[in-house]
Amino acid sequence: MARALRLILVGFGTVGQTLARQLLARRDEISRRVGRVLVVGVADSRSSASNREGVDLAKVIRSKKRTGRVGELGTPEALELIREVDADVLVELASAGGTDGEPGLSRIGRALNSGMHVVSSNKMPLAVAYAFLMGRARGRDLALKYGACVGGGIPFFEFADACTAADSIRRIDGVLNATSTYVLTRMEQKGISMDEALAEAQGLGYAETDPSMDIGGVDAACKIVILGNHILGKSFSLKDVKGMDGIAEVTAARVGATKTRKKKIRMVATVDTTPRVSLAELPQTDPLAVDGPVQAAKFQCVSSGAKFIGGEGAGGLSTSLAVLRDVLAIGDLERR
Amino acid sequence: MARALRLILVGFGTVGQTLARQLLARRDEISRRVGRVLVVGVADSRSSASNREGVDLAKVIRSKKRTGRVGELGTPEALELIREVDADVLVELASAGGTDGEPGLSRIGRALNSGMHVVSSNKMPLAVAYAFLMGRARGRDLALKYGACVGGGIPFFEFADACTAADSIRRIDGVLNATSTYVLTRMEQKGISMDEALAEAQGLGYAETDPSMDIGGVDAACKIVILGNHILGKSFSLKDVKGMDGIAEVTAARVGATKTRKKKIRMVATVDTTPRVSLAELPQTDPLAVDGPVQAAKFQCVSSGAKFIGGEGAGGLSTSLAVLRDVLAIGDLERR
Repeated sequence: MARALRLILVGFGTVGQTLARQLLARRDEISRRVGRVLVVGVADSRSSASNREGVDLAKVIRSKKRTGRVGELGTPEALELIREVDADVLVELASAGGTDGEPGLSRIGRALNSGMHVVSSNKMPLAVAYAFLMGRARGRDLALKYGACVGGGIPFFEFADACTAADSIRRIDGVLNATSTYVLTRMEQKGISMDEALAEAQGLGYAETDPSMDIGGVDAACKIVILGNHILGKSFSLKDVKGMDGIAEVTAARVGATKTRKKKIRMVATVDTTPRVSLAELPQTDPLAVDGPVQAAKFQCVSSGAKFIGGEGAGGLSTSLAVLRDVLAIGDLERR
Repeated sequence: MARALRLILVGFGTVGQTLARQLLARRDEISRRVGRVLVVGVADSRSSASNREGVDLAKVIRSKKRTGRVGELGTPEALELIREVDADVLVELASAGGTDGEPGLSRIGRALNSGMHVVSSNKMPLAVAYAFLMGRARGRDLALKYGACVGGGIPFFEFADACTAADSIRRIDGVLNATSTYVLTRMEQKGISMDEALAEAQGLGYAETDPSMDIGGVDAACKIVILGNHILGKSFSLKDVKGMDGIAEVTAARVGATKTRKKKIRMVATVDTTPRVSLAELPQTDPLAVDGPVQAAKFQCVSSGAKFIGGEGAGGLSTSLAVLRDVLAIGDLERR
């Protein structure tokens, strides 16, 4: 029997648990496609579980639900787990953390140093140290994949890679933060204030308890940096982003006045020679004038014109499917 | 030196000539990426040219311009060329022809039988005999690629393949005929009749001299059959398309009345359990309510919601870049 693809999962919130459920429920299908996929280690911020024959994921999910931890107190922390457990892929699923990229950055760096491929839904390490991490991955002929960092499950990178196969892209504009778009949409539809719209978004699970990264523009800034680096071949970092204009100051009155002019305010992230995030008033028919928890982007191709892409991009299932897509792509590579 | 990838081009209208110019102008770049690509045969409907060391493309382009033919009178016709010339890839670029798929169908069949990969921008053979042709290609482990048949350069298939890597698509709706969309857009904007709008589209090169395939719905029907077969795993043929409603009967009065209701008439092709083409009145904010020579599609994913894709999809350059993308993908395969 062929060797299994052994994963370490770090981060076991909504995305991690949903991924674990997918891996359990679709074991046979996945096995047929890329061979056996085995989770040999799981860590959250307080504990870990590991087993070289495969962690019992159903048990880990139950433990997380009951105790808030994936393992016993005193078990190795994530960075230790990556050093100690023999695995093929680190799946980094923690949420962003600070703007220094830690603690995800150290984990990804260590995994690459240990010869592991990496799949990350944690965008901050990529946004602050893309060139460094990609250089390390390429130097060791390892895959570093981050499809889940942008587009909430919409295959932005696969689409862009196809666009650039015989053409080039010179500019990207995106409405990349679904929470902000949802909030602005509700303000437009109901005439309510930002606080009211945010409370509604939190109630529906579209916004974090602390939504400052979303409405403040940092989340969109991270995404446009990663898009610019991957698609335009740049080496931007989060600190290169100009004018990180969030939507925090947008009032109900301004939304109403814009609507009267048949336009919509949206937080638009752009990258060409520089990455930037700004508030724009878009005509209602603009492909970026999307409503609800939706993301969209426009790619300006040099020879073949503008192309756009979008969709419902929010929630744990979409993100975990994007992670699974990247894991399966690595499975394909390893089987070749 | 590694062996060159040898192409036969059949069809030398706008797309063929533009592809030839790309192959000439970007020879070094292409060579670096996939190795040397050599055109060893070119045929149009009346003549051909071949050379096992590589046809002089600049000369063929000049000949076509001067005489309307790629080669001398009495040179082998396309089907003969495919039998006689040793090549790796047939690039089938002829326009649709009759609804029996001929003469492209025989050429693609013969190329596959001779062990050639096939890249086609000719959609009719795929629309009438997809299952047959794909079965033949798979049986011989050959690539049969048709990215240029749908979306006019927008990478529909690459996008869909990424969407289905970890999810499935259950329904596709598309506004797939850029000519019809352009005509309807101009009727909306100017209040003009279909004949006037068509004349304008012909003047700009967006419509063929005989636009019946476009406005009659056959072009969109072919595309939705190919999308359904590739993405949903079906085995539809053009004759399975229900209700092939073109736009020919749409009057200026109807367009005006629809506009008053803040909607747009569009020719929408749909595939789920059946393929069909119908006229729909779309809200102006619908992702499919695009304007101008644009194509767009919506993919309904089973687990991760609706995703959309679109762009400026018309014209020889976009189509020839889509063909080049498929040729380069085969070049990659061959180098592995």
